[in-house]
Amino acid sequence: MKKYTKLNHEELMSVHAQVSKEYERMKALNVNLNMARGKPDFEQIHLSLGVLDTVDSHYPFGDKINYCNYGILDGIDEAKQFFANILETSPDQVIVYGNSSLTIMFDQISRGYTHGYLGNKPWCQLDKIKFLCPVPGYDRHFAITEHFGFEMINIPMDENGPDMDLVEEYVNNDESVKGIWCVPQYSNPTGVTYSDEVVQRFAHLKPAAKDFRIFWDNAYVLHHLHTSPRAHVMDILKACKDAGNPNLVFEFCSTSKVTLPGAGVAALATSLENKADILKHMSIQCIGHDKINQLRHIEFFKRPNSLNKHMEKQARLLRPKFDTVSIVLSHELSRLNIATWTKPLGGYFVSFNAMEGCAKEIVKRCQEAGVTLTSAGATYPYGKDPHDSNIRLAPSYLPLDDLQLATEIFTICVKLVSLEKLMEQKA
Amino acid sequence: MKKYTKLNHEELMSVHAQVSKEYERMKALNVNLNMARGKPDFEQIHLSLGVLDTVDSHYPFGDKINYCNYGILDGIDEAKQFFANILETSPDQVIVYGNSSLTIMFDQISRGYTHGYLGNKPWCQLDKIKFLCPVPGYDRHFAITEHFGFEMINIPMDENGPDMDLVEEYVNNDESVKGIWCVPQYSNPTGVTYSDEVVQRFAHLKPAAKDFRIFWDNAYVLHHLHTSPRAHVMDILKACKDAGNPNLVFEFCSTSKVTLPGAGVAALATSLENKADILKHMSIQCIGHDKINQLRHIEFFKRPNSLNKHMEKQARLLRPKFDTVSIVLSHELSRLNIATWTKPLGGYFVSFNAMEGCAKEIVKRCQEAGVTLTSAGATYPYGKDPHDSNIRLAPSYLPLDDLQLATEIFTICVKLVSLEKLMEQKA
Repeated sequence: MKKYTKLNHEELMSVHAQVSKEYERMKALNVNLNMARGKPDFEQIHLSLGVLDTVDSHYPFGDKINYCNYGILDGIDEAKQFFANILETSPDQVIVYGNSSLTIMFDQISRGYTHGYLGNKPWCQLDKIKFLCPVPGYDRHFAITEHFGFEMINIPMDENGPDMDLVEEYVNNDESVKGIWCVPQYSNPTGVTYSDEVVQRFAHLKPAAKDFRIFWDNAYVLHHLHTSPRAHVMDILKACKDAGNPNLVFEFCSTSKVTLPGAGVAALATSLENKADILKHMSIQCIGHDKINQLRHIEFFKRPNSLNKHMEKQARLLRPKFDTVSIVLSHELSRLNIATWTKPLGGYFVSFNAMEGCAKEIVKRCQEAGVTLTSAGATYPYGKDPHDSNIRLAPSYLPLDDLQLATEIFTICVKLVSLEKLMEQKA
Repeated sequence: MKKYTKLNHEELMSVHAQVSKEYERMKALNVNLNMARGKPDFEQIHLSLGVLDTVDSHYPFGDKINYCNYGILDGIDEAKQFFANILETSPDQVIVYGNSSLTIMFDQISRGYTHGYLGNKPWCQLDKIKFLCPVPGYDRHFAITEHFGFEMINIPMDENGPDMDLVEEYVNNDESVKGIWCVPQYSNPTGVTYSDEVVQRFAHLKPAAKDFRIFWDNAYVLHHLHTSPRAHVMDILKACKDAGNPNLVFEFCSTSKVTLPGAGVAALATSLENKADILKHMSIQCIGHDKINQLRHIEFFKRPNSLNKHMEKQARLLRPKFDTVSIVLSHELSRLNIATWTKPLGGYFVSFNAMEGCAKEIVKRCQEAGVTLTSAGATYPYGKDPHDSNIRLAPSYLPLDDLQLATEIFTICVKLVSLEKLMEQKA
């Protein structure tokens, strides 16, 4: 097949007629398939059900019977150590929470808004708050800052992370810039891992605002698809400390995509000073999180290397799904010159870039054919992709057969909409 | 023994010398006993450990395997029904959260501050916010409203609940009054249950502020000390609806003092309109709470009447403790005319009123003798008891022997400080 971009109008018409027939045939299948969210599938969940067996009424609690009662605001020691190991930091810098890192992030933003960080003025008393948003990025991050009415500024990403020239320009000169959303390893959706140089440049920022913070969502720190190659993002807390900027970062992490998405444990890591500031606020907000669920996780992963082995099992379930998407996309689209996409080493997403101005229509056509995708634009603040090009594909949730079919339907929609765009351009 | 208030100065001196000796003897025991917080003891916790056995990897999940995954923002249906039964309301009015009702309350206050209720102006944009605080009351309630900088106004309580003339005067005339903290059944610390008339007067408020809300913390709804007599507070959600004021109330409840304080489940009940407003906000804040822990509780209480039976077991552990406190107080203090105290039918506290100006000193002397009490003043906003009289006693946590000793030491301190106060007055 020739590149679509090389076809003349007549050829485009002819290919379009052909692809339209395929599309109609797919629509007639009446499927109902969802590739929208990065949800683990049931096989993945079954891998982790053992976490429910680790602490029962026969558990030799001893002194740990305290974990059943009120208190222990920053989490049980074992859980702080567990997350410190994952984040390569020290347990005294960790707070262990309930089941959701998103809730921790919301809470930090809300705290900045209502009370301010380390004695700085609460953001609700300022006229203007800006947040930097590396794009494409995670819709739920953007939703939080939109909810609080902050102005969000797109920061382009490349294969090393955000455009740091731009980040430095904003952060070091504009006092109303209070934060940046980052997914530093296997970024959502691009799969990019920030390079050491990018991390160092983050650590050496000289923010105009004393209460500027990096929201470092290390959601995929354990989520390698392969034993090798693997990405590894540098420890930003240490880098910031070494650069004389210890309070610059809030780092987030959870077991939502390690064990049970609905019943995991989440944590925050930051400087001692930030942690004390957070705990002062938290002591008003709660008496302690669910320490028994923290203990369940500790017991589930107590044998040496069990966490790594567990994540390898997860990868064995995810790899064929990413391969399927990759194979279908390559087979159907690689020669047509109408799209690019990522082949990530980890994380939960494939980031797909259609021809400019096509993403919304592709998602719409998919929906009409029974395949639900993440909304076009969702990977940008305010849901507005300036190029209307990026689509996030989430291969994890569908069974393999369904995933293959859904991806095929997706490629047909990509072809259809691209052909129409090209016909329009050549008309 | 004569009433202390009838003693002349010489007699006071002589009794004081005697009580001082007792006090020194108690100090020499070097005890370390804590009666400060309403914490269930280990026997109570053991009653509930079975909740950890109900959902393991062999659980016949079926469709409920979804509970392990993301989603189900307002809680699983069974848990909504469970709390609806407890609060005598309907499940569609319930949201089930994580382990802490305090966190839900904080969250509602924070939401009012950052975003406002039902389209009303966020409180952070207003000059002045006032909250009514029935006193004596719960220190953690007052801590939240103090944390947000609201002005707190003391509302005296009697045996029927808050002084409703005063509540109506404030709420119906002052637009800056945005809320009131209530513990309507077995109130913390007085044990008072609001009468039907009080509930009806709440329901018929005509608030000057459209976003005024009653924060109805039904923490002790299940916490009867006796099979009979028992208190029962009227369903305020229905009363408000019937009075044409459906959106007036946020009602809170949790299993913290039913099962495991650190690993329970909490809920909010309110009007459908309020609930939709909350869920809009919550959808930004989290993807779903721990639904497996919700399921554990459902399974633990699934047999008919099992919740009541469980609470009767709890009461059998608590009753002797309340009896001990009551007996020691009566035996040591009843004839001296220097204090009054409550004999509650439920809840977790005994509310003790010393002679005016004595509470702080009593708590200090207790501390010096190794008995930790709730800070004097803690039952009032800003920690300021205008009479320096009220002390909250929490009998639940100490083993019986220790509790008896702690209460004895307490009564010695009460005598000592009262005698000193009387000597001062007669000097």
